[in-house]
Amino acid sequence: MMSDKIIITDVGPRDGLQNQPKILTIEQRFALVEAIAEAGVPQIEVGSFVSPKAVPAMAGTDQVFSALEDIGFTTPTIALIPNMKGYELARAAGAKTVTMVLYASEGMAQKNAAMSMAEAEAITLDILSLAKQDNIEVIATIAVAFACPFDGPTDPTVVEEIAAKFIRAGADQLVLADTIGAADPQQVRALTSALVKSHGAAKLGCHFHDTRAMGLANVYAAVESGIRRFDSSIAGLGGCPFAPGASGNVATDDIAMMLQQMGFATGIDLDKLMQASDLAQTLTGTAPGGRSKAWLQGHLAKQAG
Amino acid sequence: MMSDKIIITDVGPRDGLQNQPKILTIEQRFALVEAIAEAGVPQIEVGSFVSPKAVPAMAGTDQVFSALEDIGFTTPTIALIPNMKGYELARAAGAKTVTMVLYASEGMAQKNAAMSMAEAEAITLDILSLAKQDNIEVIATIAVAFACPFDGPTDPTVVEEIAAKFIRAGADQLVLADTIGAADPQQVRALTSALVKSHGAAKLGCHFHDTRAMGLANVYAAVESGIRRFDSSIAGLGGCPFAPGASGNVATDDIAMMLQQMGFATGIDLDKLMQASDLAQTLTGTAPGGRSKAWLQGHLAKQAG
Repeated sequence: MMSDKIIITDVGPRDGLQNQPKILTIEQRFALVEAIAEAGVPQIEVGSFVSPKAVPAMAGTDQVFSALEDIGFTTPTIALIPNMKGYELARAAGAKTVTMVLYASEGMAQKNAAMSMAEAEAITLDILSLAKQDNIEVIATIAVAFACPFDGPTDPTVVEEIAAKFIRAGADQLVLADTIGAADPQQVRALTSALVKSHGAAKLGCHFHDTRAMGLANVYAAVESGIRRFDSSIAGLGGCPFAPGASGNVATDDIAMMLQQMGFATGIDLDKLMQASDLAQTLTGTAPGGRSKAWLQGHLAKQAG
Repeated sequence: MMSDKIIITDVGPRDGLQNQPKILTIEQRFALVEAIAEAGVPQIEVGSFVSPKAVPAMAGTDQVFSALEDIGFTTPTIALIPNMKGYELARAAGAKTVTMVLYASEGMAQKNAAMSMAEAEAITLDILSLAKQDNIEVIATIAVAFACPFDGPTDPTVVEEIAAKFIRAGADQLVLADTIGAADPQQVRALTSALVKSHGAAKLGCHFHDTRAMGLANVYAAVESGIRRFDSSIAGLGGCPFAPGASGNVATDDIAMMLQQMGFATGIDLDKLMQASDLAQTLTGTAPGGRSKAWLQGHLAKQAG
C-alpha cells in the first residue's frame, strides 16, 4: 500500500530567486518564506550559503534565517550549501537541514562547482559525518540526473550508483534533480522505479523544471513509481540559465493542485497558496504564476462564493 | 508489443479557432491548415459545419474545404458536425471523415446541443449508417468524458457504455474528450486502460485541454495505457469557454516534442511545426504558443548550427 501523503518542498526562495533578474531584499525574502509557510507547505528551501559574488541574490541568507528564528518560525527550513564553508555558515545560521549537490556528469560538476564528481562526493561524505554529530539533516541532491547541457544524456547507472552510495552513507533524503528540465516521463518512470525497488521510497525525492512543459507529466510518472517527495517553486519562480525565456521549476501552484485532485494529502491550503503566488509575482515582476492559476483562482472564488 | 507510432490530429483550425476572439478569413484558415500539413501532422480537423450564427468563426468551412481540394491537398481532413444537417453539408463539401459529438452528461448535451444524450446517440447512429454507404469515416467523440461543468464528475461506466455501443456500431474512431480540461492523470490512466482492455487501442483516441496544466501528464497517462491517437491544437490555440484566461487544447508543439523525445514516431517536422505555430500566433494574436516553445526554438536553432 503506497502512501497517500506527499511532501512538497518549496525551493522558490532559493532555486527560484537565484534564477531571475531582480534581487530581493532580506525583508522581501523573509515575507515570501512566511507566505509560503502560511499556506501549509511542509518544507521550504530558504536560501543558499554560496559566494555572494557568484550568486548576489543569495547574499544575506543568514539574515533571513535569523529573522525567521526571531518570530519562532516552525516550518522546517532547508539551506543549500556548495561545500564545507557553506556547511559551516549554515550551521552557524541555525539551519537544521542542508542540501548538498552531487553531480551525475563531470561537465556540470566543473561548470557549476569547479570540482570533479568525485570531489563533490568526498566533500558530501565529510559533511554527512559532521552533520550526524551536529544533529543536522542532509539532503543529497543529484544534479543533471537525466541530462546535462554539457555532457548530454545521463547514464542512469551513474545515478543509481551515486544514490546507493549516499543512501548507504546515511543521507536523510536523496533527490533526483532534472536541473535543466530535460527529462521525459518515460525516463523518469524507469529511473525512479529502479531506485524505489532498490531503496524504498521513503528517502527519495524528485526535483523537476518545466522547461520543456513536461514538469507535471514527470511528477505523475514519479508518483506512479511511488515517489512521495517533490521540490517545486511558488508561482513557477525562476528560469533556466541554459534556455532563455523557458520556464523554471515546476510551480507549487500546479503540483499542489494536481496532487490534491489525485487524492493525495499535501497539507497545503490552495487559497493561501495563491496569496503566496501573488506575492512572488509582485516581488519579482517575472514569476509566471502556476500554469493552472487562471483556472484555480476562478475555481476557488466560485467555491468561496 | 505496443505501437511506437502515434497519430496526432491537429484540431486547432476548428476547436482552437472557435474558442478565441478573432474571426479569421477563409484565406487565413486555409493558410493555417496548409502550414500544419506542411509540418507533417497526419490529420487535421479543418472546421465544423455548424450554424454560422452560433459559431461565426466556422462560417464558410465549405470554402476552406474547396480551396484545399483545388490544390490537391492530400493530408486527411476532418469536419466536425453537430447533426444530420451538418453531415449533409460536410458530405457536399467533400469531407472524407466527420466527427460527431456524443455526451457523457445530460447537462452538457442540453447546453451544447440542445438535445438529450440519447438523442445525440440516435442521430450519430443514423449518421453512421449513412456514412457507411457514403464511404465516409466517422469519429465519435465523447464530450465531458471526465467531468462536466454542469453535472460534475463523470461516471466512468457511462463513458464505457457509450464507447462500447459506438465501437460495436462501427465508428472508425472513438475519442474521449476532456472538454473542460478537468481530468487528472490517475483518472485518465484508469479509464483508458479499461477501454483498451475491452476494445484494443487501434480505434481509441484522447483529446485533452491544458486548462489545469495537466495536459501532457494526461497524454503520458493515456500513452501508458496504450492509446496512440491524440488531438492537439497548433500553438495551443483556443481557450476554455468555462474558464476565462485558462489555456486551450494541449499544444501540438508540446505533444509532438514530448512524444518524439519518448521515442514515438509522429511524422512531424518540429522545425516546420514551429513555423505553423508562429503563423497561428500571428493570425490570431492570442494563441499562446506551446509552453515548450522558448526551449524548442532555441534547441532547433542550435541543431541547425
